[in-house]
Amino acid sequence: MKFTGFSRPALTPLALAALVSAAYAQTAAPALPDPASTTVQAMGWMQGFAPPPDKLITFDNPVGNTFPRIRWTFSHIRELVPTTNVWRGPGAPSPLQAAPVNLDQVRFKVMGTGEELSFAQSLERNYTDGIVVLHRGKIVYEKYFGALEPQRPHLAMSVTKSFVGTLAALLAHEGSIKPEAPVTAYLPEMKNTAYGDATVREVMDMTVGVKYSENYADPKAEIWDYARAGGMMPQGKDYAGPRSFYEFLQTLQKEGEHDQAFAYKTVNAELLAWIVRRASGKSLAQLLSERIWSRIGAEQDAYLMVDRIGTESGGGGLNTTLRDLARFGEMMRNGGRAADGQQVLPKAVVDDIRHGGNPAKFAKAGYATLPGWSYRNMWWVSNNANGAYSARGIHGQAIYIDPRAEMVVARYASHPLAANGANDPISLPMYQALADALIKQ
Amino acid sequence: MKFTGFSRPALTPLALAALVSAAYAQTAAPALPDPASTTVQAMGWMQGFAPPPDKLITFDNPVGNTFPRIRWTFSHIRELVPTTNVWRGPGAPSPLQAAPVNLDQVRFKVMGTGEELSFAQSLERNYTDGIVVLHRGKIVYEKYFGALEPQRPHLAMSVTKSFVGTLAALLAHEGSIKPEAPVTAYLPEMKNTAYGDATVREVMDMTVGVKYSENYADPKAEIWDYARAGGMMPQGKDYAGPRSFYEFLQTLQKEGEHDQAFAYKTVNAELLAWIVRRASGKSLAQLLSERIWSRIGAEQDAYLMVDRIGTESGGGGLNTTLRDLARFGEMMRNGGRAADGQQVLPKAVVDDIRHGGNPAKFAKAGYATLPGWSYRNMWWVSNNANGAYSARGIHGQAIYIDPRAEMVVARYASHPLAANGANDPISLPMYQALADALIKQ
Repeated sequence: MKFTGFSRPALTPLALAALVSAAYAQTAAPALPDPASTTVQAMGWMQGFAPPPDKLITFDNPVGNTFPRIRWTFSHIRELVPTTNVWRGPGAPSPLQAAPVNLDQVRFKVMGTGEELSFAQSLERNYTDGIVVLHRGKIVYEKYFGALEPQRPHLAMSVTKSFVGTLAALLAHEGSIKPEAPVTAYLPEMKNTAYGDATVREVMDMTVGVKYSENYADPKAEIWDYARAGGMMPQGKDYAGPRSFYEFLQTLQKEGEHDQAFAYKTVNAELLAWIVRRASGKSLAQLLSERIWSRIGAEQDAYLMVDRIGTESGGGGLNTTLRDLARFGEMMRNGGRAADGQQVLPKAVVDDIRHGGNPAKFAKAGYATLPGWSYRNMWWVSNNANGAYSARGIHGQAIYIDPRAEMVVARYASHPLAANGANDPISLPMYQALADALIKQ
Repeated sequence: MKFTGFSRPALTPLALAALVSAAYAQTAAPALPDPASTTVQAMGWMQGFAPPPDKLITFDNPVGNTFPRIRWTFSHIRELVPTTNVWRGPGAPSPLQAAPVNLDQVRFKVMGTGEELSFAQSLERNYTDGIVVLHRGKIVYEKYFGALEPQRPHLAMSVTKSFVGTLAALLAHEGSIKPEAPVTAYLPEMKNTAYGDATVREVMDMTVGVKYSENYADPKAEIWDYARAGGMMPQGKDYAGPRSFYEFLQTLQKEGEHDQAFAYKTVNAELLAWIVRRASGKSLAQLLSERIWSRIGAEQDAYLMVDRIGTESGGGGLNTTLRDLARFGEMMRNGGRAADGQQVLPKAVVDDIRHGGNPAKFAKAGYATLPGWSYRNMWWVSNNANGAYSARGIHGQAIYIDPRAEMVVARYASHPLAANGANDPISLPMYQALADALIKQ
């Protein structure tokens, strides 16, 4: 069987790096793989017993699990690595009523280029695996592509962080976490690290001065060391580095000062997850199940990737169905109240999130696609006229909550580029156009 | 933190082997670890963030994951290895009404020794992790110990085989598998192996002449090669053997003749799972979900361990909750009809199973604890007065269906010995005593 339906060789890490760099630098739009010919169906991954070698996806694949393989892997994470369950609880799911609105022809202009696209066109262009749009709590649009199905969890990537941040904010509200306290009050192990003189609040809002590069374009960036330590990437035969998230976190050293600028670094979320466990005495999976997942009427269990010693990845390891992600967003939109009327989160916790962080500190990070935004409790806050805020993950994962439009968008994707900046030029105006259309409903 | 609550060193593989040998040989009862001081609670596995080194359980533990670690691992398999989901479907679970009967003081005599035990005593003595007893479809007894909880899946070990055998029997009934056909009609890859001249029926009833030792007491037994190939045990740094179930199956060579005697070998179930996939065009997880799990009113998703290329272990990789295992047994007891009246399996398929296989061929295998039994479609059939039949897995996993007593027992356990023969002397008379007690209800 020949490798067909793909007009160029699969992206190597270096080619990917070049593309990401171009996207970051906001240079001319890099040439991206053709979405239509790189779908899961077109590629034919993992078909047959056994799949032919050129259609096989394994965790230890020596050429890496980059695009277009991620179009399959993001919906099959648990088949590749150990995971732990996030139980939905014993109750019935909350109904999600369908009230379809034809949004396909909603049109908008791509940020930067000014190209006009319809919503329907944008879904393919952004390598969408699935999207659910809620308006006033009803499903106005729901579509799945490729490997994703309504009952199948998809990797949420850094959307995970917003769950960790929400749990931390909840524990802070209840008093079991003191945001102003030093990190070492919970984690004495972190004394001789970058976090030795940081506060919990600086971790929650990612204003920590720590030497750690999140630049996916750089093969030497610490993000890869982190991923290897947590078992999210193959460690290799002669690997001698840290073998758990906790071990890795204790290697981190200071760079710059705390509390000066927003600096998006996954290790902060991983560390916050550790603080949350110590403060609650519960694993992340258990706490997430007890305080959120079992209370929002979720249809399916969620799950979290775990490292060698069973520690969940709070930085990017959550997998959920799209509908349940939308239910979570809808609970946030309703000030912490679930569809059944239950107050899942105190309204003050939700308000603290949606009112955002310090825009001046955020601006220093220089996100070209996010003017005026801020970051609070691991959520991205637009500070726009509609008061929209978002959970964001690379390759296109998102919860986008627009309070004024009474809209929640949950989207999973497998964009070739590991950078939010790569799909923001389409995604952000698209969300706004949906909001504008739904406000008129 | 000192290693306490355990009066001897943890069982090494060799010590375990000696114990298993003794059990197989029906010599004097080997000295088993004290159940009370080896519980999950007494041992304190995996507590804290991070757990202390001597309380840590990892997949690659150099001292092995033997007893007493298995008291924790059997309820946490997905945290150690990749798995795939067996979806319960979109419907509500079927209610399992509770109608408690005090069975604790039901008494019986241990096979061989004649020692008298109560049911309650036997649960600890047999290292039970949980047990559900249904009588006429209602829960008369339900108890969990150690790491198991009602919503938590536990490793079913070889009970998995009975699911594979049931699916194969279903496909045979529908005509997509021909039991009299050669294995090679479905798996031409197996031509130059032990299975080159075997029929599907011989695989289904385990009367294949294949060089493969299931003797857990022998560190060189092929069962360990099988487990390594499937990623169920660490492969080790310089491993150069087969790296999937399919690769391993193709190494198997003939020993003796087919169709002469029952010979219990896990590879037959693994091979049957492969035939079932080829015949149905579906993965085992998908087929099990579509044909059984989504139709019995299961409360929770089940899951299956997978190898490096995503192939499920049909020999021993299933994990289910105890209640759902009981629901499956109850559907079998009702001739294939689920609690909601739906005919999940044709009655002919269930009858073919419970009427059993050839007792003469079974007798040649020399199971001291199973006089008069037979084996059919990967089920163990007692041929006793009550018509009882059973799915069995080492370390004490079982479904025991007693049609005359209108009783189904689902039990999960983590007995120190990897042999059914090790707990049969207690389990089998215990089931009979429960049946006798419930018949009088």
